[in-house]
Amino acid sequence: MTLEITFESLPDLARGAAFLGTGGGGDPYIGRLYTQEAIRRYGTPRVLALEDVGDDMFVGSVAGFGAPTVQVEKLIRGDEVEFTFRRLESYVGRRIEAILPAEIGGSNSMLPLMLGARLGLPVIDADGMGRAFPELQMNSLSVHGVRVTPLVVTDEHLNCAIIETGDDRTAEQLTRALAIQMGLRVFIACFPSTGKRIKEAAIGGTLTVALGVGRAISQGRRAGNPVESLLDYLSGTQQFRHARVLFDGKIVDLERTTSAGFAAGTCRLESLEGSPSCAEIVFQNENLVVRVDGEMRAIVPDLICIIDRESAEPIPTQALRYGQRVKVLGLSAPAKMRTPAALDCFGPAAFRLPEPFVPIEALGVRR
Amino acid sequence: MTLEITFESLPDLARGAAFLGTGGGGDPYIGRLYTQEAIRRYGTPRVLALEDVGDDMFVGSVAGFGAPTVQVEKLIRGDEVEFTFRRLESYVGRRIEAILPAEIGGSNSMLPLMLGARLGLPVIDADGMGRAFPELQMNSLSVHGVRVTPLVVTDEHLNCAIIETGDDRTAEQLTRALAIQMGLRVFIACFPSTGKRIKEAAIGGTLTVALGVGRAISQGRRAGNPVESLLDYLSGTQQFRHARVLFDGKIVDLERTTSAGFAAGTCRLESLEGSPSCAEIVFQNENLVVRVDGEMRAIVPDLICIIDRESAEPIPTQALRYGQRVKVLGLSAPAKMRTPAALDCFGPAAFRLPEPFVPIEALGVRR
Repeated sequence: MTLEITFESLPDLARGAAFLGTGGGGDPYIGRLYTQEAIRRYGTPRVLALEDVGDDMFVGSVAGFGAPTVQVEKLIRGDEVEFTFRRLESYVGRRIEAILPAEIGGSNSMLPLMLGARLGLPVIDADGMGRAFPELQMNSLSVHGVRVTPLVVTDEHLNCAIIETGDDRTAEQLTRALAIQMGLRVFIACFPSTGKRIKEAAIGGTLTVALGVGRAISQGRRAGNPVESLLDYLSGTQQFRHARVLFDGKIVDLERTTSAGFAAGTCRLESLEGSPSCAEIVFQNENLVVRVDGEMRAIVPDLICIIDRESAEPIPTQALRYGQRVKVLGLSAPAKMRTPAALDCFGPAAFRLPEPFVPIEALGVRR
Repeated sequence: MTLEITFESLPDLARGAAFLGTGGGGDPYIGRLYTQEAIRRYGTPRVLALEDVGDDMFVGSVAGFGAPTVQVEKLIRGDEVEFTFRRLESYVGRRIEAILPAEIGGSNSMLPLMLGARLGLPVIDADGMGRAFPELQMNSLSVHGVRVTPLVVTDEHLNCAIIETGDDRTAEQLTRALAIQMGLRVFIACFPSTGKRIKEAAIGGTLTVALGVGRAISQGRRAGNPVESLLDYLSGTQQFRHARVLFDGKIVDLERTTSAGFAAGTCRLESLEGSPSCAEIVFQNENLVVRVDGEMRAIVPDLICIIDRESAEPIPTQALRYGQRVKVLGLSAPAKMRTPAALDCFGPAAFRLPEPFVPIEALGVRR
């Protein structure tokens, strides 16, 4: 059964995407508002299952790029996303027939839906990573050799640059340099590719999971057990089936910097009672590692999600505040995100973390 | 009579271009070598007088971009300049029929000749400023509304970006951000335009003047009076007719930084004997202002050139050394470079200098 995205389902989808954003990917509230407005004006976008994408179909991605802390200050116009997308089409000299979300996390799941609604183009039920990541080359498409370039980057004044590079890491460095100069809230169109290559490389079904996560939280709230409901749903998915609570406590310390084009920092928590007594989460746009009483409990590319301990509302890094009472959840990443090539690209070493990758399910069970 | 550029005339042309570079524009020695090599392999490039450029001729520029201090460490391959130029052509969808030097200063006068030789294209006897300047929007073309974009920027690995912006200052900021990321030695192709607009906006005859300057120095050396010979030649040109020695002394202090993508600093000199006793030259890639005993004696856009006091060899900022015995020359800029619109774009305030612009000929005569 193909997923249907409606005006009414967007709050759940946005909440689920924020959860899978593991702290990053941009503010889901704003993303939801502009996508709802697009659906109101242009109708709902059609969703295409990954397996239904034609081999010869021409596919491209759009995404916001920058620091989430800036995104909440510099809002979207709407036409800059379409401008960016059309610029990529005219540069490659080919119409794009379906939009692939580059990352399911936060507003970057919303942007393709907004654009799909505006342009009447289908959006593929898949993404490049099943989460959010801070750098362009950190995704399953790049790992499978689908090049992020040619890439178009545009600011709110429609200043734009088209990047062509030898590798996706260089594309990240050049796009980052431009984004910093452009004010850290820019839009990119990228990954022009055929359907055949996308089917091999993308993480399938992640729009469906995002909506399922949001629905599980909503239904759980009505039943008084949103965290349980969420964990039950995730355990039933094929993509994120090892899901567990890693810590339950309140935020007692928060360090942040917005530097080198990222919102980075450390969040420290204390248990509300008993042991384990304290936890530390390191983030760079997204949450990277959680250590409980000094012991690593989950690490990239596995997912680390901070939610409100009562309502299970996902809390992005820019919304973390001193005194918040939260639960820290860990999720196993999809298999394509854990291969040796994938770990080379976005495992712990890519973030200069000292720990090796250990799958969350090998780190002891708690729930 | 149309200028002819030959293998044998290149040392003089390079020396003259280095002089007009007012300290910047890149190392003339290296620029001469690669242009001589191109002439040896491909023949001499044809030079086209500015007034002979057809109104409908399609014109474009190429230049090195970055910091001169880095240029002497990262040498040129040759094909990256052609690659950059061809990329601009394919982006605008039109063949470029003549190459306009963007700046006559230093190696940026050589690069169009090298490319003209390689591609068999004429080079226009003109440039965008009659000197060198550190930022993209600082030129007579931009002042006259000839847009620097679309602009292609390429590094030595052929990583490339195409920039499209609303104004040339933004183009500078984005190109600079990329150039810093790319290692501060990049090539640009820019100013795609018609001959008609170039004729209105460019500074004509500057290749001729560069060659004339070099010849005047060479001939003066044989006669034992290179500085006199140089001043005599300049006084006879229409573009730079107020030319004078502003200071004669040795370098006693030199501060440099390579930051924000520029080679900036201050050079202090002491008179060898008598008064005036000391001078200070502030530079940002190029020499910007000279103050003698605290009194301003020349300021941008007028030209400030440091030469060896015996041989009249021009000394670029990256070659300034403690203890050098030099003469500091001041030259009046061409009339197109001194209009109110021109001064808004590259007058003293554009470099955060406190002094207003005063034409060198109004600042008292010495020679």
